[in-house]
Amino acid sequence: MMKKYAAYGMVGAGLNSFIGNVHRVAAGFDGLAVLAAGCFSRHKDKNQETGEFYRLDEERVYDDYREMAEKEGAREDGIDFVVISAPNNAHYATAKAFLENGIHVLCEKPLCFEVSEAEELKKLAKEKDLLFCVNYSYSGNNMVKEARELIRSGSIGRIIDVNAEYLQEYLVDDIGKGDQTMNKLSSWRKDPKIAGISNCVGDIGTHIENTVSYMTGLRVKRLAAKLDYFGQPLDLNANMLVEFDNGAHGVFCSSQVCVGHMNGLVTRIFGTEGAIEWHEEQPDILYVTKKGQPTQICYRGMAYVSQRSAEMNRLPAGHPEGLYEAFANIYKVWIGAVLKKVNGETLTEKDCDFPSIDDGIEGVKFLHAAVESSRRDAAWVEV
Amino acid sequence: MMKKYAAYGMVGAGLNSFIGNVHRVAAGFDGLAVLAAGCFSRHKDKNQETGEFYRLDEERVYDDYREMAEKEGAREDGIDFVVISAPNNAHYATAKAFLENGIHVLCEKPLCFEVSEAEELKKLAKEKDLLFCVNYSYSGNNMVKEARELIRSGSIGRIIDVNAEYLQEYLVDDIGKGDQTMNKLSSWRKDPKIAGISNCVGDIGTHIENTVSYMTGLRVKRLAAKLDYFGQPLDLNANMLVEFDNGAHGVFCSSQVCVGHMNGLVTRIFGTEGAIEWHEEQPDILYVTKKGQPTQICYRGMAYVSQRSAEMNRLPAGHPEGLYEAFANIYKVWIGAVLKKVNGETLTEKDCDFPSIDDGIEGVKFLHAAVESSRRDAAWVEV
Amino acid sequence: MMKKYAAYGMVGAGLNSFIGNVHRVAAGFDGLAVLAAGCFSRHKDKNQETGEFYRLDEERVYDDYREMAEKEGAREDGIDFVVISAPNNAHYATAKAFLENGIHVLCEKPLCFEVSEAEELKKLAKEKDLLFCVNYSYSGNNMVKEARELIRSGSIGRIIDVNAEYLQEYLVDDIGKGDQTMNKLSSWRKDPKIAGISNCVGDIGTHIENTVSYMTGLRVKRLAAKLDYFGQPLDLNANMLVEFDNGAHGVFCSSQVCVGHMNGLVTRIFGTEGAIEWHEEQPDILYVTKKGQPTQICYRGMAYVSQRSAEMNRLPAGHPEGLYEAFANIYKVWIGAVLKKVNGETLTEKDCDFPSIDDGIEGVKFLHAAVESSRRDAAWVEV
Amino acid sequence: MMKKYAAYGMVGAGLNSFIGNVHRVAAGFDGLAVLAAGCFSRHKDKNQETGEFYRLDEERVYDDYREMAEKEGAREDGIDFVVISAPNNAHYATAKAFLENGIHVLCEKPLCFEVSEAEELKKLAKEKDLLFCVNYSYSGNNMVKEARELIRSGSIGRIIDVNAEYLQEYLVDDIGKGDQTMNKLSSWRKDPKIAGISNCVGDIGTHIENTVSYMTGLRVKRLAAKLDYFGQPLDLNANMLVEFDNGAHGVFCSSQVCVGHMNGLVTRIFGTEGAIEWHEEQPDILYVTKKGQPTQICYRGMAYVSQRSAEMNRLPAGHPEGLYEAFANIYKVWIGAVLKKVNGETLTEKDCDFPSIDDGIEGVKFLHAAVESSRRDAAWVEV
Repeated sequence: MMKKYAAYGMVGAGLNSFIGNVHRVAAGFDGLAVLAAGCFSRHKDKNQETGEFYRLDEERVYDDYREMAEKEGAREDGIDFVVISAPNNAHYATAKAFLENGIHVLCEKPLCFEVSEAEELKKLAKEKDLLFCVNYSYSGNNMVKEARELIRSGSIGRIIDVNAEYLQEYLVDDIGKGDQTMNKLSSWRKDPKIAGISNCVGDIGTHIENTVSYMTGLRVKRLAAKLDYFGQPLDLNANMLVEFDNGAHGVFCSSQVCVGHMNGLVTRIFGTEGAIEWHEEQPDILYVTKKGQPTQICYRGMAYVSQRSAEMNRLPAGHPEGLYEAFANIYKVWIGAVLKKVNGETLTEKDCDFPSIDDGIEGVKFLHAAVESSRRDAAWVEV
Repeated sequence: MMKKYAAYGMVGAGLNSFIGNVHRVAAGFDGLAVLAAGCFSRHKDKNQETGEFYRLDEERVYDDYREMAEKEGAREDGIDFVVISAPNNAHYATAKAFLENGIHVLCEKPLCFEVSEAEELKKLAKEKDLLFCVNYSYSGNNMVKEARELIRSGSIGRIIDVNAEYLQEYLVDDIGKGDQTMNKLSSWRKDPKIAGISNCVGDIGTHIENTVSYMTGLRVKRLAAKLDYFGQPLDLNANMLVEFDNGAHGVFCSSQVCVGHMNGLVTRIFGTEGAIEWHEEQPDILYVTKKGQPTQICYRGMAYVSQRSAEMNRLPAGHPEGLYEAFANIYKVWIGAVLKKVNGETLTEKDCDFPSIDDGIEGVKFLHAAVESSRRDAAWVEV
Repeated sequence: MMKKYAAYGMVGAGLNSFIGNVHRVAAGFDGLAVLAAGCFSRHKDKNQETGEFYRLDEERVYDDYREMAEKEGAREDGIDFVVISAPNNAHYATAKAFLENGIHVLCEKPLCFEVSEAEELKKLAKEKDLLFCVNYSYSGNNMVKEARELIRSGSIGRIIDVNAEYLQEYLVDDIGKGDQTMNKLSSWRKDPKIAGISNCVGDIGTHIENTVSYMTGLRVKRLAAKLDYFGQPLDLNANMLVEFDNGAHGVFCSSQVCVGHMNGLVTRIFGTEGAIEWHEEQPDILYVTKKGQPTQICYRGMAYVSQRSAEMNRLPAGHPEGLYEAFANIYKVWIGAVLKKVNGETLTEKDCDFPSIDDGIEGVKFLHAAVESSRRDAAWVEV
Repeated sequence: MMKKYAAYGMVGAGLNSFIGNVHRVAAGFDGLAVLAAGCFSRHKDKNQETGEFYRLDEERVYDDYREMAEKEGAREDGIDFVVISAPNNAHYATAKAFLENGIHVLCEKPLCFEVSEAEELKKLAKEKDLLFCVNYSYSGNNMVKEARELIRSGSIGRIIDVNAEYLQEYLVDDIGKGDQTMNKLSSWRKDPKIAGISNCVGDIGTHIENTVSYMTGLRVKRLAAKLDYFGQPLDLNANMLVEFDNGAHGVFCSSQVCVGHMNGLVTRIFGTEGAIEWHEEQPDILYVTKKGQPTQICYRGMAYVSQRSAEMNRLPAGHPEGLYEAFANIYKVWIGAVLKKVNGETLTEKDCDFPSIDDGIEGVKFLHAAVESSRRDAAWVEV
């Protein structure tokens, strides 16, 4: 019998995890996935409490992710996919365990610490014929998809420059504070053992890279980066020149110390025939300009958008969709793909319109290149 | 034993209903309500299909809302509340049936056709000691609550003028088309038998009234309105002067024929000491100006917001919350109140921070006054 | 011999008058007018000082405007036109004196106190075959002209609604202060003997009326207004419903007590086929939307603007033009017309694209209607 | 006797020169400078025509700038200063000639081709005790001065990052067109013999450098730049990393091929305590954010601005000042300084608040560094 609903489990995402809750709401948005198992926290109490709150079978609330992977992999009614929403240092081993037990994986970004690990995961997924999604969530935004469609269709011609940034202010008090952490929320992000070799580029710079790549179809070929640490073990600010595989240049700026910016991901793509601009803080709008013409303020939900944008639309134009809905769009495509896969159907390119393990690998390469370039005083480094 | 989760049913909200889906996602957002019964459509097939999709017990998918009210009222595990998301003409009788069977009611706006009906529902709810929410969803927006807190605390002084509007473009093609309906989506909105005596004021003008009232604590005392019908049976455009119970004046403009506006609810409240401005299309921002000072762009999620805004917050500043989250906030408070009620606890004022039946009554009075004023060539009519 | 340059004189506009200096700079912007005479102030010292600063012939600095009108009218090299930039109560008599002496008149708005005076001036100008400009300066803004061209050409179809406002904050401290004047700068504006029967509508409401009329070609047929006085002798705030001669409705809101607004003249014109929006504080941009299409951000100076906009353009797109340039555009057309007139040439319609005495009359009627309507509790009053 | 008015001459700035007219209007804005001589064009006819239009003495309209410098230098009533608004290649020799003849110089930017020339001019000016202004006009914008005051006073703490750009679209059609010039207006800008070694960085990139330097007091210490030529002899697009003398990093992006941007000079200065943002296209506004606080939209003309901003103010808040007024502010300070100088008075620091020859030298160094860095594949080059 064909499965109509996907069962999923979570690693991480305890009750008070902001991003964990976003995952849970988003996975359930379209009523096609059911939370069935979890290993929500290293803290046994918190793990149990989360499982109880979501009324899971006690036996499917695991204290250890390996146990979870094995047992769920062995159950007839085991989970179809796992969501990994634990700190960065747990990604690789967790993903590996679930793949080895035949379970599809959706993992938070950055995928893992080392490029070799990322490639190993890819190889393993391929061998096991499993799907793997790396949650670059902004590619789920409707108007990011619209930008992709417009660029693919040639609306703005050949891309000649990209100016993209992701600016936040929330770590500005860490400047000059050494190891002391001012902002508890994200203390693990500044610990190399947990976050990896980069904080700012790893957390948000990599979103710039992915969003631009998703929109344009281009990859960063090399980059020249200057990271600022301000006395912290990991970077808080990063400016870089980038060169794309089509020869175009641009800049990527990411920062957690830019006062006045909350979550300022802005991508501006310039082509020979036009330009496209998108702001994550007002995600339902795309600014589209044809050469010599007025800039157009394009709204999600209007009749003039592409078929792809229309089919991913949830609300009439003007009723804002936000971060939850971007995640929900990722899950909509992802769950659709998982269900097709477990039902033995063939996946089309469109079915796979979720951020892939290749995107994850690219992200790891990107952040390694950025850190290395900065160490070498902004010398060009190939990605 | 204390109930931790509320069971709810729906009247209306079949699978393809945009607003029905918003209700369902929002009710489940915080994991505290479970869909348990429904009468989703007058069309038997669609009703069944919706029940099946949500995997309800067959016996709890009802073809008739009266049957549903009676049977659910009689079951030991019956629903705690019903969501009425059917066209306007069904609201009154449906709400009545559920109240009579002891079930709390959350109903879409406008509450009903006649003021007398609205007051009857209020009386009935009181007699039965039941909660009643009328879904003026924008009062769920975090920064609308922030506006309310700021105004209550005296930040902008005594209110002296209000300029509010709700502009849409989507019915512009109906101008001069007589009974012909250009826009299928909302054809019922223009049928007086289903929508009631007003289309534009009833659908969106009433949101202006409620949002302003919620923010300011003021009520519209009288109004002078000019509605435009453009050859249609119901109004498509409405401009009105309003006078509040504190003596302040202002204008409310609502329209479904203003090209360039998608869902343009904008409220601007002017006081002797400052001003507040909010745009539904960018709901996470509040523009706050103190007399003689620069306008401040205030963001949901920042440390400077009020305690109320902070406790209703879901995402870090800059990650957009949208319409689903506004609804989810209404449900969060509503479900909390219902659970307290069914568990025999006492409700505080804060527990009741959802739009009440009094708001619903006020809305019905408001739209009647607007229609009557326009019939009398914009004479003042008391609300 | 053909005159290439116009000689002009000023009544009012002493050295420290902000608006007087704007007139002077604007009149000289294109090098075609020369200041030759003046009666700059009732204060003899200030008058002399101003004349000296501008290096006028001593004998052409007059203590009395009547003397100036007579002597300049009698000189062979007398001024071609006079600029009247004195308080409102001086407009009528001053204009009359110059007309009687055969001198073209450019007068600040509002034209005068009474409609009968306004019509007398029109009659006199006609008898004397003299040009008369009433300085509704926003009609000089390039993109206001562009709006007019677009609307004339049918771009937005038949106009069905107008929403326009002119909001300022600078008198908010006068609320409840009775006769006391908090803001010295404009104390005369609140004195009925000097300002006339209205402060707010007279000073800025009338700009709404004129700008909308200039853009659309429509006239306000009747209005229903509520003016707020807040204990002052003249109005500080005004909300009104308007009905145009084509049957369309709308609202005009003007205020000097709306905190957060500096000089917020905004006109939004809605038609059956599109909409146009203009903000005086960012005057080089016009927002143009065609039905069902994205809003376009149109810039002065681009190749896509109308011929009229192009020929009135001064700077490449993106280099801001402001208030001085709007005045300079009025003067450019006005001086061109005066020179043609004095040289005996025939004036085309385009030559007369400056705000006329008919605009001035309309303005006086408009403000009388607004005051009367408000006295009658917002009853409709014909303009 | 003390001079009250300055006489000036122009080199370049023929009748149809857009920037020439801006200079002329701006120099006359405050009534303190009189055009007395000129060598307006290499084309004899155009030169004569311009002189006649401005009613100059025939003998003071010169066919050769050297002759002009000598004769004006020798006249008792000779010009006090010269404005050089000719193409770049003429700046050095012209400036030198006027300095040698004892005449103060205001010269367009970039100052000249070579750093050695720039330093020679500085030396010469010093020897002759003459003033020299290089027209970085944006430093004349009122709110740029306000930014400078705020930063000087410590409002935003220590500067840690700068993100600035100057984007235009108008040369996008030149891409891939080789020597062919698509846009007549600026053809000389792409001719190395006339424009020098850079087009884009020389014309607009240098404005970024100067505006940031003026606002912050910082100088660019070194830069790593990638210029794009797109088949043209000179650059059309430039992205660069910059490092300031206080150790802060940032990016400067300048472009003439970025569709959707007219004259998009935007400077964003980030400090440890706050941030400041300014947009040339809406120059009367400054966005000021203190750490952890809402962004403030600060308007020119309000009571809360600095004393410096207030004393340079021309219009009440909300009435836009634009490019002409920015130039007029440069001239206001410059003419004041020239008059003090010729009257033998001592100049204070505030008297010299115009862009100096040191700014001009810095600009030439900056563009040389940018071109050299790009030639060396974005290696760091000291400025």
